[in-house]
Amino acid sequence: MRPDMVESAARPRRRIIADILKYMRPVAIVGIGKTAFGAFPDRGLRSLAVEAIDKALTDAQADSRSVQAFYLGNFAGPSFVGQNHLAPYIGTAAGFEGIPCTRFEDACASGGSAFFHAWMGVASGVYDLVVTAGVEKMTSQTTPRVTEILAGAGDMDGEGRAGATFPALFAMIARRHMFQYGTTREELAAVSVKNHANGAKNPLAHMRKVISMEQALAGKPIAEPLTVYDCSLISDGAAAVVLAPLEEAARFNARYARVRAVAQTSDRVPLDSKADITEFPAVKSAGRKAYEMAGLGPGNIEVAELHDCFTIAEIVASEDLGFVEKGQGGPFAAAGCTAMNGRIPINTSGGLKSKGHPVGATGVGQICDIVLQLRGEAGERQVARHRIGLTQNLGGSGATCVVTILEAA
Amino acid sequence: MRPDMVESAARPRRRIIADILKYMRPVAIVGIGKTAFGAFPDRGLRSLAVEAIDKALTDAQADSRSVQAFYLGNFAGPSFVGQNHLAPYIGTAAGFEGIPCTRFEDACASGGSAFFHAWMGVASGVYDLVVTAGVEKMTSQTTPRVTEILAGAGDMDGEGRAGATFPALFAMIARRHMFQYGTTREELAAVSVKNHANGAKNPLAHMRKVISMEQALAGKPIAEPLTVYDCSLISDGAAAVVLAPLEEAARFNARYARVRAVAQTSDRVPLDSKADITEFPAVKSAGRKAYEMAGLGPGNIEVAELHDCFTIAEIVASEDLGFVEKGQGGPFAAAGCTAMNGRIPINTSGGLKSKGHPVGATGVGQICDIVLQLRGEAGERQVARHRIGLTQNLGGSGATCVVTILEAA
Repeated sequence: MRPDMVESAARPRRRIIADILKYMRPVAIVGIGKTAFGAFPDRGLRSLAVEAIDKALTDAQADSRSVQAFYLGNFAGPSFVGQNHLAPYIGTAAGFEGIPCTRFEDACASGGSAFFHAWMGVASGVYDLVVTAGVEKMTSQTTPRVTEILAGAGDMDGEGRAGATFPALFAMIARRHMFQYGTTREELAAVSVKNHANGAKNPLAHMRKVISMEQALAGKPIAEPLTVYDCSLISDGAAAVVLAPLEEAARFNARYARVRAVAQTSDRVPLDSKADITEFPAVKSAGRKAYEMAGLGPGNIEVAELHDCFTIAEIVASEDLGFVEKGQGGPFAAAGCTAMNGRIPINTSGGLKSKGHPVGATGVGQICDIVLQLRGEAGERQVARHRIGLTQNLGGSGATCVVTILEAA
Repeated sequence: MRPDMVESAARPRRRIIADILKYMRPVAIVGIGKTAFGAFPDRGLRSLAVEAIDKALTDAQADSRSVQAFYLGNFAGPSFVGQNHLAPYIGTAAGFEGIPCTRFEDACASGGSAFFHAWMGVASGVYDLVVTAGVEKMTSQTTPRVTEILAGAGDMDGEGRAGATFPALFAMIARRHMFQYGTTREELAAVSVKNHANGAKNPLAHMRKVISMEQALAGKPIAEPLTVYDCSLISDGAAAVVLAPLEEAARFNARYARVRAVAQTSDRVPLDSKADITEFPAVKSAGRKAYEMAGLGPGNIEVAELHDCFTIAEIVASEDLGFVEKGQGGPFAAAGCTAMNGRIPINTSGGLKSKGHPVGATGVGQICDIVLQLRGEAGERQVARHRIGLTQNLGGSGATCVVTILEAA
């Protein structure tokens, strides 16, 4: 035991985030890479992940052999494609040699969780260059089995046994939000119409299709009040980012983005154990922590990617993150405040609804999409103000949440 | 951006482990808890995990509400019991509120990987109190499906498609070791006889049964040259440890253990991509890194838990970690050098062979078993020298390895 280490490490027991940050160094995203999201019967899970990693490393002008740790977000590869132990399986194919390769699973927030831990690896000084990737290959399964696999992110002893898959759970959230706050079917549909309009301009989106309010309202019912246009897509896809210390970021990429904050929190899995199903405590606490870490508030956020696994989820998240007062997320969306030219553009990528939702890839993909905006490289989808962006990645019906706040170089 | 943070974080790009450690604080294990390992048809996965966590928190005299992050190792809960999103599912049941709850998957090294990341969380100063648990519930499945689920830790496109499940892969390793180094069936059996003798004294072991050399050699063939006595068990079980900064360890528990080192590395998944299947590069590099971090060598290790998923794996690991020259692991074991009173006692718990191998729990369970030895609380299995212990946790046929070196308080 080296007494000098103990001495220098002396820290108070209960610390606020600002105290912790004193011991961390700032971190930057120096490379991003995404595959198209979609249904790719001829592509394997590993090939998708490696494509995204290659693109991110090329973007960072970094060599795979200089990567010091690999963080993989994947929800259910073993169930979807029968392959487990995915981190070294993918990592070695991407050219990583002898480094820690680890898979992170937190349902639909698996990608966000991998990113959170990767940030910690660099911020703490353990690593100088790491890669986070997220991947899911969902379309090799027939639909009933996909829904069953996805249901595993909920409480299988209770919800699952009762037949309540995710569309049913979010339908209950929507119904309660309607009852409590007067949210309407039209307001839910407004989210879908907006996200489809955005996704139609995204060359990597799964469903590039503009829909009208009439179409959205006339969609095939999935779980009342949700129609097919309220539900995100079953997609294949991958995304990756390269992280380095901020002080070295420019050496890799002049168009780096700074990680101002990242926070992960959790909550109970079963919906019926929550006091109020119209809000997600994990989203609220992850948002609070991220704002505190960044020294910013919701009013500073200029563009956001929120986890719209269902239209109601985007509405609830916009409230829980403080973009709008509780209960007002519906009118906020319907009034165009979250549109490309609105007060706070949400899901300019098309969101999970139109861009697609390859579960494990989603959290990392959101980060790539925000970095594109911060760089001013979002093409037709580019927003006017793009200095500070936020991502929010949700697991299950709210048991995990990861929020990041990113800043342009 | 705070310029002072950038300044204070200035570090050279290529650093050796000693450099990294300057920025980390020493970490201690202040609580351990294990369930019995075995076949428990009436116990669920969550109940096993919560029992282990409760025991570890009680041992640490810590309250679940003061835990700041939860790291869960689990290999295949979704496949074995149909429940995914296990970290908040278990964490909230254990009383953790609003903290990051994350599942780590690295095949049979899932528990070790969770521990590695938990250590980083405390060593970096982000957290002051964290819990790592590992759990697996395997016996609810019929045997053919268990073997198939386990095979997912190998290369399903190649090995899996060819029908090469893990007994077959390790049989090939054993055959090659025999061919290259003259290792004998009797030497393999000596590992089994020793581990069964040790496990018979472990009240938490799955199979408390002393076996003779004759029995071991006459075991039912599984994959030549391996018999049923060369293969580890299919078990249910959980283990947990509580981690805190070393400087605060005594406040929790006078019988704490210091984490002198922990290292995780990886290698290619398919066996046929390795240059020499009689050694595991990931074990060698994880061992090297751990020795460097601890400032110790193999000669300093007084007691070890090695990953004997098959008897040949213990022999190979004893070589790769430098306890004995390459190729001499067989005679080393047969001569009693790894027995309770040998030069370096290995698997005094009974190992995966006799104690059992609930996959995700194994890495954390090994750490609990070594801490028991360091404390001098291993009862009938207590070894004479017990100041420094080592654990080695292997994923698949060597694609992941986690090595820890622990020291008595």
